[in-house]
Amino acid sequence: MIDEHARTVMERCDRLAGFSEEHGRLTRRFATDALRQAGAAVADWMRAAGMSVRCDSVGNVIGRYEAGRSGAKTLLLGSHLDSVRDAGKYDGPLGVLVALASVQRLHDQSRRLPYAVELYGFADEEGVRYHTAYLGSKVVAGTFDPSYLSRADADGVTMAAAIRAFGGDPERLAADRRRGDNLLGYCEVHIEQGPVLEARSLPVGVVTAIAGQSRLAVDFMGMAGHAGTVPMDLRHDALCAAAEFILATEALARREPGLLATVGQIATQPGASNVIPGQVALSLDVRHRSDARRTRAVEQLAERAAQIAAARGVTRGWRTIQESPAVLCDPALAGLLGRAVESLGYPVLELPSGAGHDAVALSDLTRVAMLFVRCRGGVSHNPAESVMAEDVGVAIDVLGQFLEMLAEL
Amino acid sequence: MIDEHARTVMERCDRLAGFSEEHGRLTRRFATDALRQAGAAVADWMRAAGMSVRCDSVGNVIGRYEAGRSGAKTLLLGSHLDSVRDAGKYDGPLGVLVALASVQRLHDQSRRLPYAVELYGFADEEGVRYHTAYLGSKVVAGTFDPSYLSRADADGVTMAAAIRAFGGDPERLAADRRRGDNLLGYCEVHIEQGPVLEARSLPVGVVTAIAGQSRLAVDFMGMAGHAGTVPMDLRHDALCAAAEFILATEALARREPGLLATVGQIATQPGASNVIPGQVALSLDVRHRSDARRTRAVEQLAERAAQIAAARGVTRGWRTIQESPAVLCDPALAGLLGRAVESLGYPVLELPSGAGHDAVALSDLTRVAMLFVRCRGGVSHNPAESVMAEDVGVAIDVLGQFLEMLAEL
Repeated sequence: MIDEHARTVMERCDRLAGFSEEHGRLTRRFATDALRQAGAAVADWMRAAGMSVRCDSVGNVIGRYEAGRSGAKTLLLGSHLDSVRDAGKYDGPLGVLVALASVQRLHDQSRRLPYAVELYGFADEEGVRYHTAYLGSKVVAGTFDPSYLSRADADGVTMAAAIRAFGGDPERLAADRRRGDNLLGYCEVHIEQGPVLEARSLPVGVVTAIAGQSRLAVDFMGMAGHAGTVPMDLRHDALCAAAEFILATEALARREPGLLATVGQIATQPGASNVIPGQVALSLDVRHRSDARRTRAVEQLAERAAQIAAARGVTRGWRTIQESPAVLCDPALAGLLGRAVESLGYPVLELPSGAGHDAVALSDLTRVAMLFVRCRGGVSHNPAESVMAEDVGVAIDVLGQFLEMLAEL
Repeated sequence: MIDEHARTVMERCDRLAGFSEEHGRLTRRFATDALRQAGAAVADWMRAAGMSVRCDSVGNVIGRYEAGRSGAKTLLLGSHLDSVRDAGKYDGPLGVLVALASVQRLHDQSRRLPYAVELYGFADEEGVRYHTAYLGSKVVAGTFDPSYLSRADADGVTMAAAIRAFGGDPERLAADRRRGDNLLGYCEVHIEQGPVLEARSLPVGVVTAIAGQSRLAVDFMGMAGHAGTVPMDLRHDALCAAAEFILATEALARREPGLLATVGQIATQPGASNVIPGQVALSLDVRHRSDARRTRAVEQLAERAAQIAAARGVTRGWRTIQESPAVLCDPALAGLLGRAVESLGYPVLELPSGAGHDAVALSDLTRVAMLFVRCRGGVSHNPAESVMAEDVGVAIDVLGQFLEMLAEL
């Protein structure tokens, strides 16, 4: 039997999926009308759950459920309301709505906790519009970089203009941080976006750490030439060099436990069927929960790329685009989540998160914890993203237990 | 000392390079103003060499130098006046202008041959505008496919409209073939577009055959997924499959003498740095002077692609886009070209052509022969394309000798 609150969460995920920039598919980027509509719906639901609601200068929707006594500390909950292009319904919204359901339960019982709960619907986590992630949570954490404001989106609209049109205030972003004193921490519920819980037949799991990530741009520069006239032994084919590197990357990641390495983008120049590729540009994404092992893997791949290039008379370009260190979840909060899972009769699976989350940005402000919810096939960033209402019910129960246990500490 | 006619040819190649669709680089596609200007200049030079000039219904420029007697046969000479994007100056025009120089020499001496010479400046060999090559020479050979006429270019202009705007007559294309009776053959001078003559330190070489070509579209369909959450052993990465195939293709071509195999284009879906590639499309170009060996190589690669896909739980798509059989040059005409080379004191290097040429289309009409001219570094389809005036002088002399020897047969 499906819990009433879980059913409501599922219905609300469907409702939010209707707020899209595109007809027939879900795309809800930062500071768009679609995001405004989603935020307004969430604000209504927050009010119905007894929360006071405000928007901050970047467009985060913030609901506050006051503590039973004055001078109490505050626990932050939340996730994001923006989406990737052609997204699923649960990546982000599920976390906001599960937390909202937990607060609703308290409100239904007219109960207050010994601490306040502040629930964030972040305005940007995916970074699709301005190619920089965590805009919403960075403002809250006080790590927003004002130089972002002059970035333009694909239509030439600067971030400052977009925030202003959205009703925010670009001038205040750098100052508009949540004060870190008196915080109990931040706890985020999110779909796993991976296949581990499904493989273990578990509804939820407790996150131990969010993997660090290196994003690199790799180039191979060979010599373009006519596909019909340059003998094989005189070629310097940049794509063949890239192919060797792609397989070397896969082999290293298969060998090293916990290492993930992905080439997701590739482009050849000149890119004609009858021309030997003279130049290839590719992206490299390397993740590990250990920063030291990630850094070593990147060094090994840089060395391997250089060897491959040298052996082929090709040159290699290697540029770090972004590095984010691993974020450890707070052992006390994670332990509490684990105890909440156990109290409901489920075994506790601890797992790392390979994907980044708002919790990464919030970790600059306070200690963080995360609860993962099983999703079908590990599929995410895709309309086929799917969770079961039963699992959502478990997540609401676990978060409710977590709130109770935190009250007893 | 550089021959006066060779110097003229070099100057005229420079002049024609000035007729471009784009400022600062040479792009001269089919039925453009740039091609019209180039054709007009060539027509003037043809008239100055004693030729009568006409344009046919597709826009080929044709100069005719009459025989010394009536009822004589006709030898066809020529090459193309269109270019690729950001082209060099010699691919195409050099062949037209070397032939023109040979006729000019006859005209300077007021000499007639026992056969007429017809010189073609073909309007389209590269096929850049409508993605179908040899439009000019196919009309002459009578193999023009009228279904091409409804094809649109990147701006939506149909081929029929383009030909009409160019002054041609799309209605007459299929009928406007050169009659094949009474022809002596077709001889084309062209830059090698490869590094063999340079490696042998020879100014010219005699082509034995134009390699057959298979052009294929190969796809690998795996499973897209989050680069941070799908463990390496659960992935079905389409790009890794493609990388294996690219290296298998290179390995086969390196093993098989005379085989050329190239992957020139590659595209991934979704193509984001943090998403495992779910789908990869690539082009495959396979060439060999033996059709049987080319066909076998394509079969081997199809099998290899299937094995690679199966081992990775990925599916494979395989589609033939185009197949052109090898064209053998006429042994008698090629032998005559060889004797002409020898008569000038150079060793005869016979070599296959890996690139296609107008001679391929003309081979449906009459026997064909080709003379290659050394080009620097084998570079072609590139502004760096370069030939030496001395080599051009040799080519003019060889073609002149060839015309004399053919007269004596």
